[in-house]
Amino acid sequence: MTNTDSSRIRVFSLNCWGIRYSSKQCSQRYVMIGDMLCREEHDIVLLQEVWSEKDYMSLKKKLACSHPHSHYFKSGVIGSGLALFSKHRIHDTFLYRYSLNGYPYMAHHGDWFGGKAVGMAVIGIGNVTANVYVTHLHAEYCREKDSYLPHRVVQAWELQQFVRHTSAGADMVILGGDLNLHPQDLGNRLLMSYTGLRDSYLETDTFDGCEDGITLIADNPFTNKKDLIPFEKGIRIDYILFKGSPKTDVFCDSMSTTKGSVADQPFPYSDHEALTAELRLETHTPPGAGRDKNLKDSSTGKLAELVDIVTEARTEVKVGLHCAERMRYTAKRTGVMGVALLLLELAIAAVPWLALGAEQPFPSTSFYLLAGLCFAILLTTTMLYIFYTMEVKSLQGAEDQMRLAVGSLQEGLRGFTLAQALNAARKPPGGLSACNPEE
Amino acid sequence: MTNTDSSRIRVFSLNCWGIRYSSKQCSQRYVMIGDMLCREEHDIVLLQEVWSEKDYMSLKKKLACSHPHSHYFKSGVIGSGLALFSKHRIHDTFLYRYSLNGYPYMAHHGDWFGGKAVGMAVIGIGNVTANVYVTHLHAEYCREKDSYLPHRVVQAWELQQFVRHTSAGADMVILGGDLNLHPQDLGNRLLMSYTGLRDSYLETDTFDGCEDGITLIADNPFTNKKDLIPFEKGIRIDYILFKGSPKTDVFCDSMSTTKGSVADQPFPYSDHEALTAELRLETHTPPGAGRDKNLKDSSTGKLAELVDIVTEARTEVKVGLHCAERMRYTAKRTGVMGVALLLLELAIAAVPWLALGAEQPFPSTSFYLLAGLCFAILLTTTMLYIFYTMEVKSLQGAEDQMRLAVGSLQEGLRGFTLAQALNAARKPPGGLSACNPEE
Repeated sequence: MTNTDSSRIRVFSLNCWGIRYSSKQCSQRYVMIGDMLCREEHDIVLLQEVWSEKDYMSLKKKLACSHPHSHYFKSGVIGSGLALFSKHRIHDTFLYRYSLNGYPYMAHHGDWFGGKAVGMAVIGIGNVTANVYVTHLHAEYCREKDSYLPHRVVQAWELQQFVRHTSAGADMVILGGDLNLHPQDLGNRLLMSYTGLRDSYLETDTFDGCEDGITLIADNPFTNKKDLIPFEKGIRIDYILFKGSPKTDVFCDSMSTTKGSVADQPFPYSDHEALTAELRLETHTPPGAGRDKNLKDSSTGKLAELVDIVTEARTEVKVGLHCAERMRYTAKRTGVMGVALLLLELAIAAVPWLALGAEQPFPSTSFYLLAGLCFAILLTTTMLYIFYTMEVKSLQGAEDQMRLAVGSLQEGLRGFTLAQALNAARKPPGGLSACNPEE
Repeated sequence: MTNTDSSRIRVFSLNCWGIRYSSKQCSQRYVMIGDMLCREEHDIVLLQEVWSEKDYMSLKKKLACSHPHSHYFKSGVIGSGLALFSKHRIHDTFLYRYSLNGYPYMAHHGDWFGGKAVGMAVIGIGNVTANVYVTHLHAEYCREKDSYLPHRVVQAWELQQFVRHTSAGADMVILGGDLNLHPQDLGNRLLMSYTGLRDSYLETDTFDGCEDGITLIADNPFTNKKDLIPFEKGIRIDYILFKGSPKTDVFCDSMSTTKGSVADQPFPYSDHEALTAELRLETHTPPGAGRDKNLKDSSTGKLAELVDIVTEARTEVKVGLHCAERMRYTAKRTGVMGVALLLLELAIAAVPWLALGAEQPFPSTSFYLLAGLCFAILLTTTMLYIFYTMEVKSLQGAEDQMRLAVGSLQEGLRGFTLAQALNAARKPPGGLSACNPEE
């Protein structure tokens, strides 16, 4: 007989938009966020874009009583911006930096300097071991011509790999954050299909928030309405995802988001809406444990769908690879031109030196300016060449892994279909089949 | 009753020293390595320093029959140099790039450009799921004054985290590679204690190889004898590590290394010796599964030892952190001086422009040279500042994680001691205690 325990946990997620001296009302908003978290006492708080460690430290001080356990994930030049507060003991943490994250010379977008990553914490909630992940993927600046799409797909790929490989020993998994992905975007489908994570907005019994669960809304005074075109009302890009295990069933009883304003406050907490999910855990003696439960439970249809999604992702990565290789080639060619120009200049300068007494053919100011230009070209193209090489390697690496995964999935699919056919042939009328996957 | 199956697998590991046009007899050695692997038919082959993808591709072609499954891990500017060949199906791969790996301006050491990482492959061997890891840590160039020590400690820390968190669902774990760590080095103790991995050289029933299992030996014609001082005969820095699971017991029946020369060949395979371990698996129905078996099985003494090791690692990381912060400060100060010099020069140059008609105080050649120098200083110090900031963040990140881990371990230790005391008090004479950890 199985023995079932039930408990509830409340999870909170918010992109804090915490760029000091640049984000509007940054310090006032942090005060509001701290007060609210102190009052609400969520079990787990997942914050993104806490760019300044000072802001994290002041939150930590304020939440010392309500959330005695916390962790700030450091990475990149500025940091990952990821912070986690918990009422329950954090046993272990781990950080995975995405291999691709925009371009350093796109400084106005700033993603590269942020060192985007996924942070993990192993948290003990009673008898349950929860693996909690917080992440923030590369922003989408232009949906029509999104030059960062391959980077975001690779990030989603690495995120699902990290979650899948690190969560085998966990009783439950929670992932929260700003994915910068719409619900039907490739990266999101990749993440959800592969890991078996469930979207609390889609799973919840009761929902209180904006229409369609949107989290970047036109009604928020901090959002730029132009950025939302063609999505007039807004978009859903922030998520709280979860899954259970053979030992623990997880249900989402209720979910809510803020709606662009906060009662009795002059402005909202952030340009994103805050998410709160109430999860109910039912812990029982497992009927049978196994690796990759989500894959084992999958039907043929689900496996075939996963193959399609990974294939689509692979195509997207290949497009990015072509682009990166072209850019690297351009950098190389420009560099070679810089060298040629420098050699030409040196040759001209050498003329009077070889033919002693002949006059210098061009004035020294131009000479030094041209030489400086050549060196600047050489330096820039070398750095770009190194950077694009790293990008090419990372894209190739992801593409290789995807090819291998598709092969393995297809083999699984063949074995699965075969097993089903054999079962159908052997099955006695009215009897139970040995392999009875859920459809 | 448990049902036990027994099977054997042979694992091979070699640092190939495959720097094209620089490593001696590189192409000839690859031919030798390929022939030997084809003949020996190890189940799993773990190679390091396969720097050129062309060499990997030619090996792949040669081993198509003996090892139909393979993977090359791409990372960094040059690549990770890690390759894996397998007789058994590779289901999944994953790569973790270490957050620290030397300095880009130490180009003669070259580690930074290599993008050191740990590669993982999930391999199905019969009914057993094996998580196989291959890695290569930062080299040690000077044991007395090892400026890379904090980097190597952080790499060992991240390696143990990666192995521990990704192997919970595996039936067995194999890790092979050039760790650049002596058996008693801090990084090695950190890895072994935390993961519960066992050293095949120490565990083997029969051993055939060099004295003390050394893998970088003075007798090898490719090794630089000076580098080995004060270890006259050589050092042991290459390893094949393994562990089982509740479902699978793993034993090392025999182990061997090459001894600096190869029969009928003019030179050895590499400057490192090749390792081969024969592992015996006994698969049975698990008496009970659980997360972090190695930690649960640990005695109080082992836990206390682990606390000491992590504390020692934390101290080492703090030393590195101080050093990185000092270097960052120096870069900042030099940059500020560059700006001051540039402003001074501009001020001097502005004098004749303000006092119309006054003569230019210094010749234009010197003016441009000085301006060029100022810009070069500014550019270099800015890049160094960014780089050191990334280093500081990574070191701080590792230090934070270590502090948290020590706290959690100490709590476990207290709980453990308490449980033991309670058990001792409650235990009926001759009865079985509820909690009976192995000593």
